[in-house]
Formats: sequence, C-alpha cells, structure tokens
Amino acid sequence: MKMVDVGGKERTERVAVATARLRMKPETVARIRAGQVEKGDVLAAARLAGVMATKRTPDLIPLCHPIALTGVTVEVTLDEGGAHVRAEVKTLDRTGVEMEALTAAATAALTIYDMVKSVDRGMVIEALQLEHKAGGRTGTWDRGTAG
Amino acid sequence: MKMVDVGGKERTERVAVATARLRMKPETVARIRAGQVEKGDVLAAARLAGVMATKRTPDLIPLCHPIALTGVTVEVTLDEGGAHVRAEVKTLDRTGVEMEALTAAATAALTIYDMVKSVDRGMVIEALQLEHKAGGRTGTWDRGTAG
Amino acid sequence: MKMVDVGGKERTERVAVATARLRMKPETVARIRAGQVEKGDVLAAARLAGVMATKRTPDLIPLCHPIALTGVTVEVTLDEGGAHVRAEVKTLDRTGVEMEALTAAATAALTIYDMVKSVDRGMVIEALQLEHKAGGRTGTWDRGTAG
Amino acid sequence: MKMVDVGGKERTERVAVATARLRMKPETVARIRAGQVEKGDVLAAARLAGVMATKRTPDLIPLCHPIALTGVTVEVTLDEGGAHVRAEVKTLDRTGVEMEALTAAATAALTIYDMVKSVDRGMVIEALQLEHKAGGRTGTWDRGTAG
Amino acid sequence: MKMVDVGGKERTERVAVATARLRMKPETVARIRAGQVEKGDVLAAARLAGVMATKRTPDLIPLCHPIALTGVTVEVTLDEGGAHVRAEVKTLDRTGVEMEALTAAATAALTIYDMVKSVDRGMVIEALQLEHKAGGRTGTWDRGTAG
Amino acid sequence: MKMVDVGGKERTERVAVATARLRMKPETVARIRAGQVEKGDVLAAARLAGVMATKRTPDLIPLCHPIALTGVTVEVTLDEGGAHVRAEVKTLDRTGVEMEALTAAATAALTIYDMVKSVDRGMVIEALQLEHKAGGRTGTWDRGTAG
Repeated sequence: MKMVDVGGKERTERVAVATARLRMKPETVARIRAGQVEKGDVLAAARLAGVMATKRTPDLIPLCHPIALTGVTVEVTLDEGGAHVRAEVKTLDRTGVEMEALTAAATAALTIYDMVKSVDRGMVIEALQLEHKAGGRTGTWDRGTAG
Repeated sequence: MKMVDVGGKERTERVAVATARLRMKPETVARIRAGQVEKGDVLAAARLAGVMATKRTPDLIPLCHPIALTGVTVEVTLDEGGAHVRAEVKTLDRTGVEMEALTAAATAALTIYDMVKSVDRGMVIEALQLEHKAGGRTGTWDRGTAG
Repeated sequence: MKMVDVGGKERTERVAVATARLRMKPETVARIRAGQVEKGDVLAAARLAGVMATKRTPDLIPLCHPIALTGVTVEVTLDEGGAHVRAEVKTLDRTGVEMEALTAAATAALTIYDMVKSVDRGMVIEALQLEHKAGGRTGTWDRGTAG
Repeated sequence: MKMVDVGGKERTERVAVATARLRMKPETVARIRAGQVEKGDVLAAARLAGVMATKRTPDLIPLCHPIALTGVTVEVTLDEGGAHVRAEVKTLDRTGVEMEALTAAATAALTIYDMVKSVDRGMVIEALQLEHKAGGRTGTWDRGTAG
Repeated sequence: MKMVDVGGKERTERVAVATARLRMKPETVARIRAGQVEKGDVLAAARLAGVMATKRTPDLIPLCHPIALTGVTVEVTLDEGGAHVRAEVKTLDRTGVEMEALTAAATAALTIYDMVKSVDRGMVIEALQLEHKAGGRTGTWDRGTAG
Repeated sequence: MKMVDVGGKERTERVAVATARLRMKPETVARIRAGQVEKGDVLAAARLAGVMATKRTPDLIPLCHPIALTGVTVEVTLDEGGAHVRAEVKTLDRTGVEMEALTAAATAALTIYDMVKSVDRGMVIEALQLEHKAGGRTGTWDRGTAG
C-alpha cells in the first residue's frame, strides 16, 4: 500500500465539486421544511457536517494525502422528491480535492438521513458523484462533457 | 440542536445492514481484478476503510451517539459494471447502528473511487441505502418488505 | 499520570450542566441577529459544535474516561451584551460528565467567536463554569447553593 | 455554511496569544503546589493538553481552516487565587491562529479543572480572551490598545 | 475484513500490562534527568501521551473494538541504559485491552524518542511486549510462565 | 512544554525510513501465510494501518508538528521467525518525518499482533528504530554508519 509520492507536483490552485442526491418521501421533505424535526435544524446541520467532513477526509480514506484546504462551501436544497447537496472544495496544494468534495457531499446527505430516519428509513442516496475538477497536471474534468 | 436522550431505552442487541453500489467502467473493473492499481490492493483497502469508518461515525454525523460496537463485517465484490459493498454492524446498546453501517458502506465505496479515480473519474455511487435493521423499540425493518 | 480506576463505581444516571458567557459589542449581537455573518448561521453552528465537542472530550482532556453519552442539549441565546451558552449532558456510566458539559460550552462560545471575530476581536468568554451535576457517589452539586 | 476562501491571501508569519484565568480556592492552589493531586502533575498535564489542543482546533471549530503550525508554547502559572494560562501560537500560512491560541488556553484551563474538580467543583474560567495577534492583512491587534 | 463479533461474550473485568524498553546513550539519560531538554519535561510528556494513546487505539488498530476503559496507569522510569515504560489498562467490557496497553507503551516510548531525538537519533525500542493479561474467556496469561 | 518554532527553517525535501521487527512463533507465520486468520488479510491490514498512522502522528506524539506528507510506503514481509516492517515517509516541509515513519512501523507491527494475538500472545516487537533520514539542517543520518 502506498500514499503516492506527490513531491514532484506543483502547488497550484485546485478545485473540485461533488453532489449527492438523497431521495425521500414528500412528507419527509415537508416535515424538514416545516422545521418539525426533533433533533434540530436539518439543513444547517447537514451543511456544517459537510464542511467539517472535508477536514476528516484523510482519516477516512486511507491513501488520501493530508492537505491544506483554502475554502469549502456546502449547499443543501430541498425539492419535492428529496434533498440535493453540492460541495465545493478548493486548495493550493500538490494534489486534488475530489475526495474531500465527495466526502463532504456524502456526509451532508448522511446527516440528513440521520436526522429524519425515524420517519423515513427507506431514503436512498442515489447519486453521489464528482461533477467538476480543475487544476493540476490532469487539468479540467466536467461530468457533462466527459466521454 | 440535540443528541436525543436514549437513557430510557434498553441495552439490546441491534444490527444494521447497508449497501452501496459503485458503477464503473468495465475496464476499471478489469484493472482492479488484475491487481494493476498503483496504490495497492483495492478491495482489501476498501474493506478495511469501511470497518474503520464505523468507529469514526460519531465524529462525522453530528447527532450520532458514541456507542460500543460488538461486531462489524464489510464485504466488497466486483461484477462487470462495478463494485458492491455490504456492511453489517452489530451492537448491544441503547440506540441503533444504521448510521454506522451507512458510513461504512459509503467510505468503502469512496475508498475504491480514490484508488482508481485517475483512470475513471466518472464513477458514480448510485445507491447507498439501508437494507435491514433489527432490534430496539422500532423492531425490524427490511427494504424488501417496507411499504 | 493516571486515568483513575472507576471500575468499582456503579453505572448510574449522571447529568451535568455548564454555561459560558461571551461578552461582545452590541453591534456584533445585532449583526448575528440580522443574519449578516459571511460564514453562515452563527447560532446553529455554535449549537452543533457544542454537541459534537462532547464526543471529542476524551481526546482533549488527557485523563478523562471515554464514556457513553445518552443525551446532549446545547442552547445558545443572545442578549444585548453578548451570548449565553448552556450545555446539558447525560450519561449512564461510571463517571460524571462535567468535563463534557464544560467542553461543549467552551466550544460553542469559541465557535461564535470564530464566526464574528473579524468584526470584534475583543470579545471575552467571561464565565465558563459548571452550574449543576447530579448522580454518582458525590451526589448533587449546584453552584447556587454550594458553599 | 462555508469555510471562507483564503486562497487569495499570502502565506505570511502570523502569531496569536490568548490567555485564560481559572479562579480557584486558595487551598486548591496549595494542593497543586504541594503535588498532592491523585491524577498526577497538574501543570505539566495542562501545558501538554494545551499544546495538543492546537492540533485539534479544526476538528472542534467547524469553519476553521486546517493549517500548518510552526510553533506553540503554553505556560501555566499559579498565584494565590488560581491559575493563569498563556498560549502563543505561530504559523506561516494564509490565515491566523487566534482560534488555535484560544483553544489551547481553554483546554489547558479545563485540564486543570478536571484534575482538581473532586475538591473544588466551583472553579470558574473567568477570562478566556485573545491578547495579541500579528501578521496578515488586518495587521496587529493588542487588547491593551484596542478601542 | 471483520471486527469479530463479541456480542456473545460477557462484560467482565479485564486487565492488561505491556512494557517497552527504549535503549539510549548514557548522556541522553543524563540530559533527561537534568531537565535539560528544550521541549520540556520528558517523562511527564511520555506518561501523558501513553495514557492518551489508549483512547486512540481503535483509531489506529483497524480491527480493535471501541471500548470503555475504566482505568489507565503509565509509568516511565530511567536507568543507565535508557527508559522503561509500563502501561496498565483496565476495562469492564466484552473484549480485552492488550492492544490499548501495547499502544500506550509504544506511544510513551516514541514520545521520549521525539523529545530527545535531536541528540540521539540511534535510540532503539528493543522490547515492546505484553507482560500480563487477565479476565475474559481465555483467562490469565503471564509472559513469565507462558510456554 | 512547547512545540519548537520551525518558522525559521526552510521547506525542503525530507525523508525518513523506520523499521520494526516482530518476532513470532513459526506456526504463527505459517498461519498468516496460509491466509488462515479469522479477522482477514493480515499483511494488507498492517500495511494500510501503517500508512494511516502517519496521518495520526501529531495526535499521538504531543510535540510533533502537523505537517504535509507527500508520500508514504509501508512494506511488510514475513520470514521464518516473524514479520519485518519498513516504512518510508516523505515531506516537503520545515521539519522531519522521523516520528511519522516510526509511528507507521509501530502501528503496522501492532496491527499484526492484534490480528494473530489469540494464537500467539508472546510475540515481541524487538527492534523499532530509525534506519535513515535525509534533508533539513542536520542532513543525512544512517543507522549503519552512525557512530
């Protein structure tokens, strides 16, 4: 096993965006919107948990490098069918932040699940994926235009 | 915000099973099977990361209780279209382990993503979900038979 | 150094309440109330950080026992002169949760400080203290009635 | 919620100094001085816990950046009325270390509280505050001369 | 990979003792004894690091169960040829604490190494081993009398 | 106590190599080779635990600086008398990575111990030591040629 050597790579600006879709029952969405969740403010908790998870990524993903993060934004929105998480992570370092963005999106979605699971255990995270990354030797990648 | 009081609940045997499906290109599956991944043994790393993630769950999911885990098994299998993760977690405590099982499945899938992302950035975790839970006041829940 | 042996103590219900007072400028209070803080929702972040800090207490306070927490509530309120944090922690274990409650109150107050420090660096946490504890061999203690 | 983007800021030398005052009974001070505390050397434990807490700050304070620390010193002194903690933290990074210094001072004071709480539960941390910071775009701030 | 199921085992009193021997140059021992180490009090730091490491054991050793620890004592003594660490850990749980005791002894010895390595890089931890364990289904084991 | 100020040191390439020798019974070696260990793949787990431990080093060793790691490789091999661990860690930072390499080697060896301790409690880590370090103000050190 090895954490690959990135010592020969440049410190450059890198960004990654990941999203997660959590499908839930309409009445669960309504309950969150109405603020009727015993544990507290679901969307605020999900956003904060997502931001904090970026800092735990090297502890979770065994071969991830511990790196400096320069900025993190996590947004959570609701529609009729569930919640949508978007996490954007930036760094100025020798390796990318795809895993930090994916871990943030996953953790935010799981935090929502945790807060409303007592009323909707069947919720599914049905698309957790990288949307965009830029910077570094491999340059820009976008889900929309990738082959 | 609050971590709900479980002091009035009984210490009983509880189990939860969660799964994650990671869709990848057939050539990525082939590469993992052939052991041609620079970072090391992908499936062993994913299983171990999944097990270890159960122990970090209360650090990630803000309102989860820190609890004793009595057993954890994480299995990862490959088929033509990708990887399938199954995590089973057991406890003898006052609250369930759904979040531990889901966090294990998510982390195992993200670990695979990390190890082969340089050749397949478009991989998608397309179903991260609870399959089964038993024990506690709310009893047994199965995805197959839930309404 | 030693983490004292609590093996001879009973598992009983224990509770602790701690508070923190953060003195700030009236205009800082007004800014938080108006939701004009760039980093996000200050009070939600403070409450969540307080709850999460209870789970990190054994990592921070060297001789604290790692224990099961059954419930945690963190409340943050504003008045003209600043913020007031109240943290209540419960357990069913062999040792008390005073340190968990104090760590929660301190962390919630520091989180507020962090979110508005760019406009008010002079804020002071001017009273971080235990208010109440009950359970265990030493029984109940209340700040109001203690000698 | 967001961890604000510091990617446009310069890596410069930054320092922060925070202090905490823990008021205790004279006999508690005497007991610490006499080395009559069952758990061990109180001042050594407090200093070490303070240094270590600087490294946990991004885990505790949700929107803090994970940064490289170049130096940390924690001093704890006793007088008749209690203990005084002074924490100084340095970095060469894109954001300041005020939160690291405050977290170190808080943790050192709470560690003292933990080690002698069995004989003096009424101890109060009555001033946890930033004393000085230098470096970065906002320059130097001193409690003594701030408006 | 799996964390083996201990749900069928009894909660009983269990204890483990581990030791580590760190061989160093006589002049390094003399320097520690004289308190001439720039980083601070070597033995106090080693003891405290050892105690704290018991609480991080499940984070480090992948298949260790997270368990409640009821007591931990770490002793460090010096003789002419180096340092001797003895760590004793107790629990009332379903699995033993051998790994916690070994991790404490290793961490205490490594902490000493860290604090004096600038003057003696050749130090060797030459025996890190379990000395004794008691409790649980397999009963008592002693290094002295084991076959 | 202090984490010494490295702000005046240069960011340069630094490397450290540490090894650990775990002596075990021949039948224990045979069991690992045959893959007959209930907990799973011993060598894969040990390697991964070693890599991950490098990222936890500042949490364990009190006065270690939190630094960026550019590469980590952990190798574990078996011979008749036991296991040999070799950990190599690289950074481009202001301080060396000796402690990260030693912590990786210790953790990998302890992970093996954990996975087979039920059949061989008497295993001994009989040499945990730095083999080589290069880079930084003090330059290169090799165990073989050091006085």
